[in-house]
Amino acid sequence: MTLSRRYTLTLSCPDQVGIVAAVSGFIAEHGGWISEARHHSDEDAGQFFMREEVLADSLPFDLETFRQKFAPVAERFSMTWKITDNARKKRVVILVSKQEHCLYDLLGRWQSKDLDIEIPCVISNHETFRSFVEWHGIPFHYVPITPENKAAAYGQIMSLFEGAEGDVMVLARYMQILSGEMCERYLGRIINIHHSFLPSFVGAKPYHQAFLRGVKLIGATCHYVTADLDQGPIIEQDVVRVDHSDQPVDLVHYGKDIEKAVLARGLRYHLEDRVLVHGNKTIVFR
Amino acid sequence: MTLSRRYTLTLSCPDQVGIVAAVSGFIAEHGGWISEARHHSDEDAGQFFMREEVLADSLPFDLETFRQKFAPVAERFSMTWKITDNARKKRVVILVSKQEHCLYDLLGRWQSKDLDIEIPCVISNHETFRSFVEWHGIPFHYVPITPENKAAAYGQIMSLFEGAEGDVMVLARYMQILSGEMCERYLGRIINIHHSFLPSFVGAKPYHQAFLRGVKLIGATCHYVTADLDQGPIIEQDVVRVDHSDQPVDLVHYGKDIEKAVLARGLRYHLEDRVLVHGNKTIVFR
Amino acid sequence: MTLSRRYTLTLSCPDQVGIVAAVSGFIAEHGGWISEARHHSDEDAGQFFMREEVLADSLPFDLETFRQKFAPVAERFSMTWKITDNARKKRVVILVSKQEHCLYDLLGRWQSKDLDIEIPCVISNHETFRSFVEWHGIPFHYVPITPENKAAAYGQIMSLFEGAEGDVMVLARYMQILSGEMCERYLGRIINIHHSFLPSFVGAKPYHQAFLRGVKLIGATCHYVTADLDQGPIIEQDVVRVDHSDQPVDLVHYGKDIEKAVLARGLRYHLEDRVLVHGNKTIVFR
Amino acid sequence: MTLSRRYTLTLSCPDQVGIVAAVSGFIAEHGGWISEARHHSDEDAGQFFMREEVLADSLPFDLETFRQKFAPVAERFSMTWKITDNARKKRVVILVSKQEHCLYDLLGRWQSKDLDIEIPCVISNHETFRSFVEWHGIPFHYVPITPENKAAAYGQIMSLFEGAEGDVMVLARYMQILSGEMCERYLGRIINIHHSFLPSFVGAKPYHQAFLRGVKLIGATCHYVTADLDQGPIIEQDVVRVDHSDQPVDLVHYGKDIEKAVLARGLRYHLEDRVLVHGNKTIVFR
Repeated sequence: MTLSRRYTLTLSCPDQVGIVAAVSGFIAEHGGWISEARHHSDEDAGQFFMREEVLADSLPFDLETFRQKFAPVAERFSMTWKITDNARKKRVVILVSKQEHCLYDLLGRWQSKDLDIEIPCVISNHETFRSFVEWHGIPFHYVPITPENKAAAYGQIMSLFEGAEGDVMVLARYMQILSGEMCERYLGRIINIHHSFLPSFVGAKPYHQAFLRGVKLIGATCHYVTADLDQGPIIEQDVVRVDHSDQPVDLVHYGKDIEKAVLARGLRYHLEDRVLVHGNKTIVFR
Repeated sequence: MTLSRRYTLTLSCPDQVGIVAAVSGFIAEHGGWISEARHHSDEDAGQFFMREEVLADSLPFDLETFRQKFAPVAERFSMTWKITDNARKKRVVILVSKQEHCLYDLLGRWQSKDLDIEIPCVISNHETFRSFVEWHGIPFHYVPITPENKAAAYGQIMSLFEGAEGDVMVLARYMQILSGEMCERYLGRIINIHHSFLPSFVGAKPYHQAFLRGVKLIGATCHYVTADLDQGPIIEQDVVRVDHSDQPVDLVHYGKDIEKAVLARGLRYHLEDRVLVHGNKTIVFR
Repeated sequence: MTLSRRYTLTLSCPDQVGIVAAVSGFIAEHGGWISEARHHSDEDAGQFFMREEVLADSLPFDLETFRQKFAPVAERFSMTWKITDNARKKRVVILVSKQEHCLYDLLGRWQSKDLDIEIPCVISNHETFRSFVEWHGIPFHYVPITPENKAAAYGQIMSLFEGAEGDVMVLARYMQILSGEMCERYLGRIINIHHSFLPSFVGAKPYHQAFLRGVKLIGATCHYVTADLDQGPIIEQDVVRVDHSDQPVDLVHYGKDIEKAVLARGLRYHLEDRVLVHGNKTIVFR
Repeated sequence: MTLSRRYTLTLSCPDQVGIVAAVSGFIAEHGGWISEARHHSDEDAGQFFMREEVLADSLPFDLETFRQKFAPVAERFSMTWKITDNARKKRVVILVSKQEHCLYDLLGRWQSKDLDIEIPCVISNHETFRSFVEWHGIPFHYVPITPENKAAAYGQIMSLFEGAEGDVMVLARYMQILSGEMCERYLGRIINIHHSFLPSFVGAKPYHQAFLRGVKLIGATCHYVTADLDQGPIIEQDVVRVDHSDQPVDLVHYGKDIEKAVLARGLRYHLEDRVLVHGNKTIVFR
């Protein structure tokens, strides 16, 4: 059931003839076995995107050497690129407030190794989940947020995230608006779950807005956080059917199921390096 | 496979104790056999909604007598109500422009009797579908719309609709904005299919808007037409998954499938008297 | 956000004229306020099914008196019926083996009060989840099952269930086949989640079967347990899309999300007395 | 809105190092611009699958020359391969009986050019749709099937198909079982829509079977026809929710919507050379 160790190469560059040939030629020349590959050309933007998985054992060198040897190819095509090793677990820092559904869901997936990650710590503006988190053997940090202490509090969170060598920060229904500085510094590394089918019902109380409009489906949206509230690149969305008999409290209830499912899928795509960002949109090589 | 003849009673009134007892008592007293029943209480609004189907043969009188005898019950509870006979086919007038997917879909359902309706005529601002419609034995009326002739043209459409004794007008991707007067006069009787998951992407070119925002699902919305564009009570909605590789032309393509499916479902609910309107929302007793 | 206290009356009886009138007349006569009602006539079987919610405060007597006073009505129509009080939390005993996804999901819903139930104990044939369950303050019973001790083990489980005054037993991916005696004794009170879209892929390793057949959707089924393995009345089902790139291990992964969602929905319908069983089928008044 | 002309190369071969490099190297060497690419490795089977779209204008030669020049590459890797030109419309022969929903749907898509195909003829064992088909300017052939004339009738259908230079034969609810010879001769070129979510409810009257089992979702399956009834490789499937109130006649009704949607999607994948068959399964590069 265990998959073999893989390197994942992701890149984007201005589109032109010969990119695939150059990349796959490089890999083949060193005996690399490509186990999965996806390309996408954005013809309007003239931009090319690629993701390839290579069996680690098929290459005669390590990632450091790969990076050195591949650099000239990347330079020739002006690539933005990276290569990661799936043997190194990503470090996911979870931020949470008082709702547990996403937290339970993520810790359950971590516990069962369905999400093969490290969770170096959980950070919250409430003490609510300390003992639950600590029972899992995961450090819990209480960082209260008040109108007065925001700068200091966000500074503390950034320290904790960097001290934990976090790769990605997950806002698991974290009910605070991050500072612009923080959004900027970790661009493409903070994932939020919004409780509506964006762009419908931006802002506060989306389920209440949905109830008032009388929609027949409600949804959730997993997106990267940017300084523009609820406007970041969308990674994943889904919906569930509701009807006239559902009160706002019912919408909240159904919504939780969609929120945790959509967050889990979006996070997984990110962790497996399946998401490339271009402008305010994502390419998701599922 | 044929269902027996039924009367369908729909009503709404201020909620209070004893409504169901009074209605079902009245029906039982006359030997009426209730084959399907749905109630809904809107507790915030204090309003009660009901739909009951009664086997026509179980009652000793016709609809006219039913209406007379039931009137005192209705008055006692200040009901807004009606009763219809499913043996009388509803008369559906279709308005169409240049896209055929909804028209083909509706005529196919009519042809196969899946939609057991009369289509007294099709009205269009283009000649495109004349021969296709006429081949089905259905009259086709060409009513061009220009910026100058709008009042006259809508007057002509209203004449045609009333001359055809239309029960409901279906905008099957009819790319014109109806006059406020027309919306007002046929309130609750004009059904539109909008090519987005409202309230997202109101107005023109919703698929293009969806493409620019990078959403992962697109949808369609069937709603009653009101004077506020795209703001009327929603009857039915659905969505379909798209991804980064889909261009606006692909979204249009997938969207058509959702549009015709959602329009067909919404229209069916309306034709079977399953939709009650309250303010800007619908109760749909599916 | 809290809903008022309600009594829920569910019944079925041979269909005839006057049932709704008799029931709603009885309720109205005592000032009972019906907040939700659903009926269903199975015309082939000639059987009628009803569920009504009545606001507890609108009635001048308690449930015991209701039962006495309603008995003659029930008798007149040969009803099978019961009435429950949503102020009394149902007692749910969970059986689990070594997979945690359903257990985490159910305990998370219990913790957040999204499922407003008592969990008097968790029973398992493995020690795996003892400390996790006990951390929640819920007793954990280890009842190993071997080919030799089955009769004794199931006897012990029945004792634990009855000692806990369990209302319903949930098999949350409990990988043992219950004894016929146990299925018989708790008919309609044991809920299982099967990891396929029944009736496809009955029996062992359904994800592997699905992989070999090359289906494009996989599913899960929540059903009442009967002595016929995987054949009991279906309460709820759902599916998720897969494709050629998904290995059995991926199907297991996606399947878990569907399993926990379907189990949670099916259990909720049962707990809210929305499920009536007729032969091998269910009426679910969602 | 029109896409540029493309060649589509599809191939499969035993998996080994260097396939992508060889193929993309060949294309790049001749200046070919790859606009879309998908690969898949079946690790169990040790088989590799690829689909690439190349902009026709970027290559300095035509398809015939491509085939000659590429042959040595194909031979080196023991490829099964083909290359097609999307400027040449595929020829789709439709077989139909007495149900119109799939026929209306396909002709509507053809009429609007959503399906950019030729329909050289429609063949039926009933005269029902002659005038509808002929109104579209499409030849209609009536080939009655009786227990006695089967061999002759299927011979006639094969003559018509070959006379029409058909690429693919679509069974649009054609209620006859094709001869083994015919299945064999056009393997991978006959597409059927089965009215159940296979492998559930194989054989006759699947909606009735679904009703009796009390499933909560019904579905449809688009698959290649093989000599084993309902056992061929699955191209596409989908489902729709039903409930206890739905009679078999309702299941048929909902089912039709799913049937036509699933058939249209499956056919499109086939026409765009997105489907590769391996054993009894498909790789669908959507």
